[in-house]
Amino acid sequence: MTEPVQLRSPYLLFLGDAPGNLDAKTATGVAHWRPDLCLGQLRMAGCGADCGLSDMTVAEALEGGARTLVIGVAPMGGSLPESWKAHCIEALEAGMDLANGLHSRLGADPDIAAAAARGGGRVLDVRDPPNDLPCGDGRPRAGKRLLTVGTDCCVGKMFAALALEKEMRARGLKATFRATGQTGIFIAGTGIAVDAVISDFLSGAVEVLAPANQADHWDVIEGQGSLFHPSYAGVSLGLLHGAQPDAIVVCHEAGRSQIDGDYPAQSLASMERIIATNLDLARLTNPAVRLVGLAINTSRMPQDDVGNHLAALTERHGVPAVDPVRTGVAAIVEGLA
Amino acid sequence: MTEPVQLRSPYLLFLGDAPGNLDAKTATGVAHWRPDLCLGQLRMAGCGADCGLSDMTVAEALEGGARTLVIGVAPMGGSLPESWKAHCIEALEAGMDLANGLHSRLGADPDIAAAAARGGGRVLDVRDPPNDLPCGDGRPRAGKRLLTVGTDCCVGKMFAALALEKEMRARGLKATFRATGQTGIFIAGTGIAVDAVISDFLSGAVEVLAPANQADHWDVIEGQGSLFHPSYAGVSLGLLHGAQPDAIVVCHEAGRSQIDGDYPAQSLASMERIIATNLDLARLTNPAVRLVGLAINTSRMPQDDVGNHLAALTERHGVPAVDPVRTGVAAIVEGLA
Repeated sequence: MTEPVQLRSPYLLFLGDAPGNLDAKTATGVAHWRPDLCLGQLRMAGCGADCGLSDMTVAEALEGGARTLVIGVAPMGGSLPESWKAHCIEALEAGMDLANGLHSRLGADPDIAAAAARGGGRVLDVRDPPNDLPCGDGRPRAGKRLLTVGTDCCVGKMFAALALEKEMRARGLKATFRATGQTGIFIAGTGIAVDAVISDFLSGAVEVLAPANQADHWDVIEGQGSLFHPSYAGVSLGLLHGAQPDAIVVCHEAGRSQIDGDYPAQSLASMERIIATNLDLARLTNPAVRLVGLAINTSRMPQDDVGNHLAALTERHGVPAVDPVRTGVAAIVEGLA
Repeated sequence: MTEPVQLRSPYLLFLGDAPGNLDAKTATGVAHWRPDLCLGQLRMAGCGADCGLSDMTVAEALEGGARTLVIGVAPMGGSLPESWKAHCIEALEAGMDLANGLHSRLGADPDIAAAAARGGGRVLDVRDPPNDLPCGDGRPRAGKRLLTVGTDCCVGKMFAALALEKEMRARGLKATFRATGQTGIFIAGTGIAVDAVISDFLSGAVEVLAPANQADHWDVIEGQGSLFHPSYAGVSLGLLHGAQPDAIVVCHEAGRSQIDGDYPAQSLASMERIIATNLDLARLTNPAVRLVGLAINTSRMPQDDVGNHLAALTERHGVPAVDPVRTGVAAIVEGLA
């Protein structure tokens, strides 16, 4: 079976001409979570984004040992502008890999492919899943797994998983973040974009991504979507079954009451229902699954209200409710031991 | 957007050298449900399967107006034996289409592709989904939809859906079977193999497959897998959300207590749990969804026990429990009006 993609570091993060950091969330995420993987950033004229890394050209990055140019911004319209392409070609011709998480595959672009052939580097369209993924079989496997699940898309499932991995490692626990989306893959250097997997192989992909491990090792798996999302619930359920989680953390954005995006008025399911349904369905492949915490993004809430809000959730659901940014996730990790 | 595949009839059903009808379930299904689409069958030396159609060569079928050679058997090992390929090439060179539901794609075979180019026919790998499927959006759409769901794989979801369509039409209702697997696609002449769709587009594929329709028209959608199947539950949930069913029929094989196939001892969820979970999750895209019947495959049960068994289920779940083969589905359709 083809293995999940493996990126080579150090990275040169490409920010293009992104107007600001909101347009460069992938790059800022990589720089935030894995500064050790990032040699520098490449910004074109007019770029207003900044990851706080040294600015450098492809040539300078090469001199510093960079192995991969990571496209850390999403262009308007989804396809690569010509002005960006020149930098990609320069990096490939110099032997660097090009790592792309956009929906449009760069490996299919003849100019890009030719540059890679000349330089000997790889074009890594990280959303492409491995070939020959198996169907899931649900067989119990060794090791412990924690999955972040959500009330919706974009509520902080990746952030929570990375914060949990960091906290677990800081306490001497064995923990590995397992990436299921493109930004997570750049951060982990490997992973599988589960929403790009053919449906038949969804749970099997997660079994490959988070294989059997030492009994005291935690895989911290990045969740996707929500069981109550009209577009992506199938992805969430395949991920839940494949993960065989021992523990789930429910992620939510405080104050969000409707599904995010262009959907008909679709209320979010209640936290009670999200918890109960995730646990109920997860028991199929791990009867011992339990809820170990809530990760609440309170960024739209006044700081003064956060303490009471989290305390009320903790009281109501009987597990620690934290904001990974504002309070950290220590309370959740304490409960794991 | 590319439309779902459209097959041309009449069909010549290819049975190869299948030892018996169990190996030719696709062909026998097509012949059973759509005898009007089938001109004849092509059996090689040693074939022990029989769809009850006239035996004919490709040349004879052409003379009778056949438009498509349908591969109605699954070969050992999954790939097309050379001895079968010769017949496929003969049909393609004569201008017929070749319809294939195997996992291996015949369009990629150079000999097959060359024969199609010479003859002008199409190689229809019906498991290939349309390009450019959208993500689902869950917007309510006109028309009524019934989805067959299951306690497991291979419990009769396609059969029940086809029986329901037939009964509904016999009563003057407007009804269209919507195929979600390869055999169903041969029967309907169109459809989308949802388990071959990229996960992101699962519910969107079903929105395309069963689009808005007249208010009194029923789409009868073939279910796949089960919400409690460790490999395929994601497919089942995406299908459930995309279908926006007004009505569900739960399909089950009497006496089956374990997930079918090579799985760790995995008990089937109880009928109560299957019903409750399907309804609970279906409400996301259709709050008015209701259970309208149970379709029970009682083929392993003595005929004398069937009446009591179905009566007990009817009593317990408050909806008609039928065996589509032994009792027909009239009781379910009566309750729909």
